Order: sequence, then C-alpha cells, then structure tokens
Amino acid sequence: MTGITQIPVSSPAGIAVFGHILSHGPVPRIDVARATGLSQAAVTKAVTVLIEDGFLEDEDAAAPPRAEAPLGRPANPLRVRAGRAQAIGVKVTADRVYAVRTDLIATPLAVTSRANPGTTPEAVLEQIAAVVAELSTAGTPISGVGITVSGDVDAQAGVVRDSPLMGWRDVPVAALLGERLGLPIVLENDVRALTIAEQMFGRGAGTHSFAMVTIGAGIGCGIFVNGAVVEGAHGVSGEIGHLPLAPGNLVCSCGRRGCVETIASSAAIVTAVRRALGNHTLDMPAVVELARAGDVAARTAFADAGETIGSALAALVNLIGPQRVIIAGEAVGEYDLYAERIRKAFAEHAFGSALNCEIIVASHTFEEWARGGAVAVIREIARGRG
Amino acid sequence: MTGITQIPVSSPAGIAVFGHILSHGPVPRIDVARATGLSQAAVTKAVTVLIEDGFLEDEDAAAPPRAEAPLGRPANPLRVRAGRAQAIGVKVTADRVYAVRTDLIATPLAVTSRANPGTTPEAVLEQIAAVVAELSTAGTPISGVGITVSGDVDAQAGVVRDSPLMGWRDVPVAALLGERLGLPIVLENDVRALTIAEQMFGRGAGTHSFAMVTIGAGIGCGIFVNGAVVEGAHGVSGEIGHLPLAPGNLVCSCGRRGCVETIASSAAIVTAVRRALGNHTLDMPAVVELARAGDVAARTAFADAGETIGSALAALVNLIGPQRVIIAGEAVGEYDLYAERIRKAFAEHAFGSALNCEIIVASHTFEEWARGGAVAVIREIARGRG
Ligand SMILES: [Zn+2]
Ligand SMILES: [Zn+2]
Repeated sequence: MTGITQIPVSSPAGIAVFGHILSHGPVPRIDVARATGLSQAAVTKAVTVLIEDGFLEDEDAAAPPRAEAPLGRPANPLRVRAGRAQAIGVKVTADRVYAVRTDLIATPLAVTSRANPGTTPEAVLEQIAAVVAELSTAGTPISGVGITVSGDVDAQAGVVRDSPLMGWRDVPVAALLGERLGLPIVLENDVRALTIAEQMFGRGAGTHSFAMVTIGAGIGCGIFVNGAVVEGAHGVSGEIGHLPLAPGNLVCSCGRRGCVETIASSAAIVTAVRRALGNHTLDMPAVVELARAGDVAARTAFADAGETIGSALAALVNLIGPQRVIIAGEAVGEYDLYAERIRKAFAEHAFGSALNCEIIVASHTFEEWARGGAVAVIREIARGRG
Repeated sequence: MTGITQIPVSSPAGIAVFGHILSHGPVPRIDVARATGLSQAAVTKAVTVLIEDGFLEDEDAAAPPRAEAPLGRPANPLRVRAGRAQAIGVKVTADRVYAVRTDLIATPLAVTSRANPGTTPEAVLEQIAAVVAELSTAGTPISGVGITVSGDVDAQAGVVRDSPLMGWRDVPVAALLGERLGLPIVLENDVRALTIAEQMFGRGAGTHSFAMVTIGAGIGCGIFVNGAVVEGAHGVSGEIGHLPLAPGNLVCSCGRRGCVETIASSAAIVTAVRRALGNHTLDMPAVVELARAGDVAARTAFADAGETIGSALAALVNLIGPQRVIIAGEAVGEYDLYAERIRKAFAEHAFGSALNCEIIVASHTFEEWARGGAVAVIREIARGRG
C-alpha cells in the first residue's frame, strides 16, 4: 500500500522472529525461539533469510561459537542491522513541524523543525517537504516518511479526516506528499504513533497492555492491547479528549458539547483563567506562573482539568483495564499542578481492581513525537511481504 | 490451570487451525490454510493429530476425494467433532441461576434453572451445584463448568473480586465449586463470556473488532479487538456501567458516584419513576407498561437512561473504534423506549468517523448468557497444551 520495502519474509513465524529481535535485540537464537514459541529450526530458517538480505546480523560475527551453542549453531546474539534502512518521522502541530531521521532501530540521527506560516494544508505540507529535504542525505536511502497529526486520521487511506487542532478536514496527506516527495508516506494519528514507539522501543515493550494518555493542547490516548495498538475499525480510536465527561454547556474545538478537552486542554485552562481574572492577554506560561505563585483562579483551572483527566483515566481503565498508563504530552512539565486531582478523581471512579493500574508520567519533547512517525514507518518495514 | 483437557497441539499453528475450524467449520483444508496464512503442510500436520485424537473429522469421511483435491489430499471439508467434549455453562443472577449443557461447538443440549433462596455465596453455590448435577449425564463426560457472574471477576485466580449486583466480595468460586463438583471450573465475567460466545460462534465471528453492550439490571460491556476479548490486566475491563458520565450526586450500587448505572440500570429507572409518581410498589413491568401508555415520568426515565447509554456508547466507540456494537441484555425487550435518545446522544458525542460504527440490537435469553459460560470452557479446550 505504502510502497515501503519490507522484510523478505511473509510467514507469521518470520515476522514474529524479526519483531522480537527488533524490540528486544541483541537476543540469542534460543531466546528468540522461547519468546516466540517457535522451533529452533523455524527460527533459523527465518534468520537465514533475514541475514542474507541484511536485516539481521550476528552481534559479533567474527567471534567463535560459544560453548553452549546447541547443535553447532552459533549462540551469538542476533540484532537488527540498524543501518539497513532509515526513516523520517514528522510531528505536525499548529505552530511548527518537527522532524527526525532515524535508523532501523529508531535511533535518532538528525532532527530539525520549522515554524508554520499558517495552518492551511498547503502551508504545512510546504514545511513538511522542507524538513524532509533537509533531513534527506545522499547516503542510505529513506525507506519512508511517517507523518503524524492529531485527530481522526485514516491511516489506511492516508487521509486526515478531521483534525480540530489543525482545522483540517479530509486532507489526503499521503497522496499529496507522496507525489511531491517521491517517497513512500505513512500517515498516522500522532498519539497512536507515539504508542507504537513505546510499544516497540520503549516502556511498553514486554507489557501485557498499556495506554498512553497525552495532555496539553489536546488530550489524546493510544491503546496497546492483545498484542497490537488499537487502530479503530473506522479510523478513530483513543479519542479520550472527546469523551463526554464535562458539562454539556461547554463547546469543544471539535464542535461537540461536554468533551474532556473543554476543561482539560491547555486552551481551556488559559480561557478559564483569562475569564476569572479579566485578563485576556494571559498565555499558558503566564498561567503556569500564576498557579505556581498560588493564584486561586489558576490553581482552580488546573485542579478542574486534573479532575476531568482523572475521570477520563478511570473511564479508560474501567473499559480496557491496561496494565499501565503512561502520561505524556507537552503539559507533563506542569504535571504537579494537575497531579493531586488526577489521582483523587481516578481513585474515586476506578472500578474494583482497575485501581491497581500503574500510572507513570513520562517526559516530553516534540522530537519524541516525531520519532513516533519514524517508528510507524519501521512497523511497516517489519510487517513483511504479505 | 483449570485442569481442562485441551486439544493435543501446542504450536500457534495447530491452535490457529483448530480455532478457525471451530468458528467457521466445516471448512476445506485449503481454506484453512488461506485463512490462517499457514502452509498446506502445516495445516495437514496439525489436522492429522487433531483427527487422531478425535477433535476433528472429515465432513464425509466415506466420500471419495473430490476432483479439485490438491496433491492427493482429500478436499472434504473438516469440522470439529461436536461430540468429542461437553461443557456446562452457568449464568448467575441475583434471582436465579441459569445453566446449559452444550457440545464442543456450543450447541445447547439441555437447559435448566433454579431460583436462589438468597444471594449469599453459600446459597447460590448450592443452586449451581444442583443445576450442574441435573445436567450431568452418564454419557459423555463434562470437560468443565463455566460460571459467569457480573462485576470484577479475576478469571485467572477464579475469584469474584467485587460483584455489586450479587453483593459478593472476594468469593473464590472456582476453588469452592471445583472441590464440591470434582470438575474443572472456569470463572468469567458474564458479559465477557457472552462476548467470547459471539466472537467464536456468533455475530462477532469474522469481524475486525466489536463490542457487546448489555442493558438491564447492570450495564455491561465486552470488547473484542486485535484478535481477542479484552481481559483487563488487573481483571477489570468493560465496566461501561461504571463510567462517570452521570451527575456526581447520584450514588451507584458499587458505592461510587456518577456511574452510568445510577441513571441507566433497570433499578435506576424504577427508582426514578417511583419517586416521580410517589408510588413505591412499582416494578419494572409496571414501569414499562406506564411508559408504553405514554406516562411522562416513565417515558422521561427511559429517555434519561437512553441519553446516558448513548453517551457511554460514544465514549466506548471514541476510545476503541469497534467495527460493530451489539446491544443485548434483559432490557432489549423494551429497546424502543430507549432507542431514540440512545441514537441522539451517540450521534452527538461520537467523534468523527466513529459515527460509522454499526449498532445492532440482539435478542436476549438468560440461556444465551449461560451458553457464554460453556463457551468459556470451550475456549480453554481450544487453547492447546501450552
Ligand atoms: Zn471534542
Ligand atoms: Zn458504579
């Protein structure tokens, strides 16, 4: 579909072998067999093809086989040949586009970003083309470009159906950019991409299930359960920012009433404090400063946001029961201002043993979000030739 | 864990072959290979073992191989030998226990039910033992008994952690009944069991993802996504009845505030109408009759319930994005009284293309719920010897 060059295996076994080494390597062959439930023969078969095509390599091909090598096979750990492919990831925000170039194991090799002159698709796609050109080098060719945007993103079709934060509707990003850049394009919801990155290369690897919840300009969510990130049959999933948990008189940027974001987004917090203080020039840094100085209106706005976020977390956990929730996003820098009420509301509404769900707070950079786009490309590479 | 005799394969391939034939049989070998992505050789290998052990059979073993038989293999469709094993399923409600005995493909062979003299675990387990004894016959031995209860059920441990509708906390049902009955016991949340049944043998088979939402005494939910029913890392999932979507002044049977069930459960509807009319003897049939006769208080109570259920459906669909939602449960008999407001609230709060989620209404019998317990046993049989 995307035209990305994939690993030269198509069997579930081969794909499982590469996927395990990608997320956990370097790994001895025998551990790959154990983890995937495959026979050593099946592992060897897949590994041979993947080494031939340069996707895998022995960690130390020159070293002699170790003593514990079973049946003469080298016990050298296997790893993905990081230099076999490169990917570019882009995170689109209203203000800027952030981009990163990574190797095949998602190590950032170069980063850049540009301010958007406007938020029209034309203006933003122009900036995306510029950062991709800047990051493209004459060396290893780029396997694909992963573009991540908030909102209702149809990854299959490559179309942004509805992104309230960008003001975009039905923008065929993959087709427009693919033609312009001459590169395979993967389009993905930004939070789902971040979740894929955590699952393949981060704090989600090896968990039974987890959810990412991002706070900031938007309140987003990515869900990993039953072995995969939830994509949504109709393109939508993880729209925790648009659960109807707020009063019905509040209108959201998406046009609906009572969404979580009407109280919990950065814009909602700023608006609440502006109104309370009659000062319409306040911005988020100023509101944070006021809250830290003890201003009641500012502290109340963060507390109300925390209450709504905590209720939303409880809703998520009551429905899905993930092992862990990772909170990320721009606003984690001010997490202390939300934390108490998030905890309280979550504890009040989490059902039974769902309360045991581990909630951890991650750091935030937009480069990490951009890396999510690169990982969406890597996931395509790792899908195998179906 | 449960002591249930499982199919004599342990490889992912063998389990996939049996699982496909179980849900889709009779199926020609070649279609099994296509659907599972396995080679014909791998299918043949698994099928041979499964036929030898009596779990599979050729649909018509006596018929000659068909013309299109590839490489001499018979093209006879394969099916599960329904008589190879039997399971008993039990649905526990506060009033009665309902039980069904099925064959290996979940066909009901016998049903029964008994009134509970009380809702204490002792009283109810007594009735469960009685219905199981009644359904056990001298013929095919029973592979296991699947007990289904609403609430926070720890299927792994076999313990009902918290069932507000039963008033049970930390009841080790599997251990208590296993000892008493001398049979392997599977314990499962009732709605998850119903979801497993729909997924393996019903309207969920072949879908990308779906959710069951049950309305009635409780509002429950089971979610099938990424190839499996969501179990919840800590035992809890699908607790849509306890999403905090109602006003915080309403206290739920679970002790929390603002749960969906405070407005949308049958008890909440009855309570609202009793209060409005000052008649504290009304029961659900009387309230339904009033609503059908046009009584404003009764119609309003159903409308309010429908509004809350519609919002809860939108929350579910915004988070998970299932292809289809199946509404079931005792209250579907009165679905017309909820329907308009469910539709309206869902349309108001479903995000973007999540609105395209297909919502269908199923019929309801408690025997079907009991069958869910039997299917939970069949799922254990089909897991293979790990
Ligand atoms: Zn909204
Ligand atoms: Zn509740």
